[in-house]
Amino acid sequence: MTRVSIDLNADLGEGFGRWTLTDDERLLSVVTSANVACGFHAGDAATMRRVCELAAERGVRIGAQVSYRDLAGFGRRAMDVPPAELAAEVAYQIGALEVFARAAGSRVAYVKPHGALYNRVVRDEEQAAAVVEGVLLASGRPTGGRGSSDQGASDQGPYARGLPVLGLPGSRLHEAAVRAGLPVVGEAFGDRAYRADGTLLPRGQEGAVVTDPAEVVERSVSMARFGVVTAHCGRSVAVRARSLCLHGDTPGAVELARRVRAQLESAGVRVEAFA
Amino acid sequence: MTRVSIDLNADLGEGFGRWTLTDDERLLSVVTSANVACGFHAGDAATMRRVCELAAERGVRIGAQVSYRDLAGFGRRAMDVPPAELAAEVAYQIGALEVFARAAGSRVAYVKPHGALYNRVVRDEEQAAAVVEGVLLASGRPTGGRGSSDQGASDQGPYARGLPVLGLPGSRLHEAAVRAGLPVVGEAFGDRAYRADGTLLPRGQEGAVVTDPAEVVERSVSMARFGVVTAHCGRSVAVRARSLCLHGDTPGAVELARRVRAQLESAGVRVEAFA
Amino acid sequence: MTRVSIDLNADLGEGFGRWTLTDDERLLSVVTSANVACGFHAGDAATMRRVCELAAERGVRIGAQVSYRDLAGFGRRAMDVPPAELAAEVAYQIGALEVFARAAGSRVAYVKPHGALYNRVVRDEEQAAAVVEGVLLASGRPTGGRGSSDQGASDQGPYARGLPVLGLPGSRLHEAAVRAGLPVVGEAFGDRAYRADGTLLPRGQEGAVVTDPAEVVERSVSMARFGVVTAHCGRSVAVRARSLCLHGDTPGAVELARRVRAQLESAGVRVEAFA
Amino acid sequence: MTRVSIDLNADLGEGFGRWTLTDDERLLSVVTSANVACGFHAGDAATMRRVCELAAERGVRIGAQVSYRDLAGFGRRAMDVPPAELAAEVAYQIGALEVFARAAGSRVAYVKPHGALYNRVVRDEEQAAAVVEGVLLASGRPTGGRGSSDQGASDQGPYARGLPVLGLPGSRLHEAAVRAGLPVVGEAFGDRAYRADGTLLPRGQEGAVVTDPAEVVERSVSMARFGVVTAHCGRSVAVRARSLCLHGDTPGAVELARRVRAQLESAGVRVEAFA
Repeated sequence: MTRVSIDLNADLGEGFGRWTLTDDERLLSVVTSANVACGFHAGDAATMRRVCELAAERGVRIGAQVSYRDLAGFGRRAMDVPPAELAAEVAYQIGALEVFARAAGSRVAYVKPHGALYNRVVRDEEQAAAVVEGVLLASGRPTGGRGSSDQGASDQGPYARGLPVLGLPGSRLHEAAVRAGLPVVGEAFGDRAYRADGTLLPRGQEGAVVTDPAEVVERSVSMARFGVVTAHCGRSVAVRARSLCLHGDTPGAVELARRVRAQLESAGVRVEAFA
Repeated sequence: MTRVSIDLNADLGEGFGRWTLTDDERLLSVVTSANVACGFHAGDAATMRRVCELAAERGVRIGAQVSYRDLAGFGRRAMDVPPAELAAEVAYQIGALEVFARAAGSRVAYVKPHGALYNRVVRDEEQAAAVVEGVLLASGRPTGGRGSSDQGASDQGPYARGLPVLGLPGSRLHEAAVRAGLPVVGEAFGDRAYRADGTLLPRGQEGAVVTDPAEVVERSVSMARFGVVTAHCGRSVAVRARSLCLHGDTPGAVELARRVRAQLESAGVRVEAFA
Repeated sequence: MTRVSIDLNADLGEGFGRWTLTDDERLLSVVTSANVACGFHAGDAATMRRVCELAAERGVRIGAQVSYRDLAGFGRRAMDVPPAELAAEVAYQIGALEVFARAAGSRVAYVKPHGALYNRVVRDEEQAAAVVEGVLLASGRPTGGRGSSDQGASDQGPYARGLPVLGLPGSRLHEAAVRAGLPVVGEAFGDRAYRADGTLLPRGQEGAVVTDPAEVVERSVSMARFGVVTAHCGRSVAVRARSLCLHGDTPGAVELARRVRAQLESAGVRVEAFA
Repeated sequence: MTRVSIDLNADLGEGFGRWTLTDDERLLSVVTSANVACGFHAGDAATMRRVCELAAERGVRIGAQVSYRDLAGFGRRAMDVPPAELAAEVAYQIGALEVFARAAGSRVAYVKPHGALYNRVVRDEEQAAAVVEGVLLASGRPTGGRGSSDQGASDQGPYARGLPVLGLPGSRLHEAAVRAGLPVVGEAFGDRAYRADGTLLPRGQEGAVVTDPAEVVERSVSMARFGVVTAHCGRSVAVRARSLCLHGDTPGAVELARRVRAQLESAGVRVEAFA
């Protein structure tokens, strides 16, 4: 099962006001999809504008990295947000980012939950459904029947079905998105250990994070080319993913991301945004 | 100089989470334009969604009531926000509201600054220009030249020139908007005293606020029909305005708003959103 | 088992900036202990100051109503806050309130968690321990051993052991507080249904909230005088509580609180702050 | 006019949640007074606790770095905060920090406004008075007459008069503090140009900031030893200051701070917290 192309995504624009975190400039020369923070866990308006301009200039796809409203916790603390509030907050973030994407001559092209919300909607059906409702709202496809779907859908161009949802394959989020008719894009992690069933070994468990750069590169290439990675138990396991998630907020991360991309290209994998 | 029609605008959706302020349901049966709070001084995402749905149902026009980022001060404290930040924050708020307006089958149809920002841009050229830049960004007409104005403008429909700016006639904000090619809509206040030159008597000065309901009604009708009101000094003064601003956050305010509308209609004034 | 005295507590100062919620003035004429919001779910600094002044004038005891940091959700959304963060946030809130209590000639006399945090620490040992650590920190009794307990403890006056923790009898919070040597004060609810084992019937279940005012009064008096209330199943159940929690944020709530107090006094119960 | 001792102060704890800014560990080995951010422009509760523990361990004095409530702008945007709100917000921040200072076996020993507030109270009498009122509130010396000054003052120990206010010599803030009976401590800047009248050349003007490290060191030593510095015009000007302000948030800043301290000590100046 050889893959000919892979998307590379990373979180960008995760500063806030005076504070910076991600090296947006350099990351944008590596990735093909930029998960742009939308102000709820990080990302002030001026940063969002700048990142969108840079991404558009370099032909990097712009995605809305939506989060719980939690600047103090960087969106890393799970919250029991009622579904109606969560759906509205997701739509709010996408809409705010869309302004800057459009002003830069681009569009918001997908949605990816951040941090604790990402982890929560792997299993939580209610919150997964709320995120999907928020994506539908922002796609001009409200579930409630009130919206003018004609106008809304028509100018979404390639996203007439609604915005694709980037997330963990097999997650409740992806199930809910599929049910709602939204495209889904699965992602894999070169720096995370997998179990034999294809799920991630939870953080906190011994060996959950792969720290050796060479190993991260090797695993990334293996997943991109063959859809296969060596699980924690030593067996080979299939990992279906059209996108690889790279990290940019630790020392050496951008350098590692570059190595991953270079090795992918050397191995004949085309690095490009998902269709 | 008889006017045949007048728009009535009021601030709506000015609660936040557990807190409520404006009586949105009742106000929406009176006004023709709803200035919806966008989350910076008031207005959480779920409230924005609900207000947009109600407004769309009743055919009330939706405007973005943009503000400084200041929940604790309800946007009533002037802030020296650098222009680039202010422009981006204005665009952010408009974009967030646009999602809910569209999902309800409507669109954001105009922009009105709130509170301290409203007052500041009466005289502050730099901030006035920043607000206009934010409106252009959100209208798909960025000044910087990077944006794809073709796509951006084309789906704005009736707002191909950009979103109209509702504000004080003669303000720096309106001057900047006109220079940028944005439509402007002037508003008048039935409950505020005017000076002989047509400017408002500043709050805090004796008699600045008209509290007698009958007088508020009479002044509103006079401005709508004849474009004239009695100034503080007793002389008649011309007040050009296509919209009257009503208030909804004090006891009896909705009742007064209803009386104003009823008297306007009795006097043969057509109450309708500005063209 | 006749009780001669009972404390009445209620949440106060739960506005924020422009928004108000609780009728602080009137509530302070009914209760003996005021749970003052400290800025994380509600309560700006100016409101905290004013409520402390009013409470001190009327001899009402001041307690710190500590919460998750969540203005948008009014502290009603459970959050997975890491223990070290939660402990520090609890201490922060107590310290902020202490300034206003002292400036009014009083002191913070107890701590009560709010909303989702209150409910969470009924069962969650980790967060319960974190709240207790925060109370110890603010009491000048840090667990880490670094603090100068001599100075810290000496000027706590009557709270040399640390601040009392007001909460649900039998909760993990109270267990953790007792282990740490903190005084605990149990509270009961005249408007909530109890199960035969003395625990509350969860909200959302049929009959969980008692809405008939006469019944609320009767149950309150029964718990205060006899430490007994009729459980949902019809049996009498013992409810040990030195404080009754009254609510002040719904229409008619203050009037009901007054009736409860009046009936308690008519029945010979002394209404006074817990010792 | 030879000085035998000088205090070195710097801003610390200016991260927030996931974001860091100042190198607190290394700065604490250089300075004698730590201006700790209190949560309004930076500084979450857990960071405040940690910085207080580190400062107490190393014998560094803890000061409350109070700010406008403006995380998005890092407290660098002037705000027209009404005096009563500002006073309460200042007191709130001091009280929150006091908890962590005491838990670490220390106390809040002074107050220094941050950023835009620092600059505003150089000239704005109303806000200067509000900051002083906030300091008095937090010192247990409320102006309103309601407070129990006996208890409040008695346990302030060495700060029975109230907390010292660190700021610009000749500022309205210092004038207001002196009028209120608060101690004041003037500070000087080795990296800022002075005018012939001893005031700072405003930022933005050519040469306002001294960037050459050797020059910064030389000027710092000159001000500490002789109370004199070369003004922008070339003349010598007297600069009275018991404290030098060092910066720690730029690359190389900590190294420069070390050089300043080393040269001061080589020149026979005793580096120690102000009395």
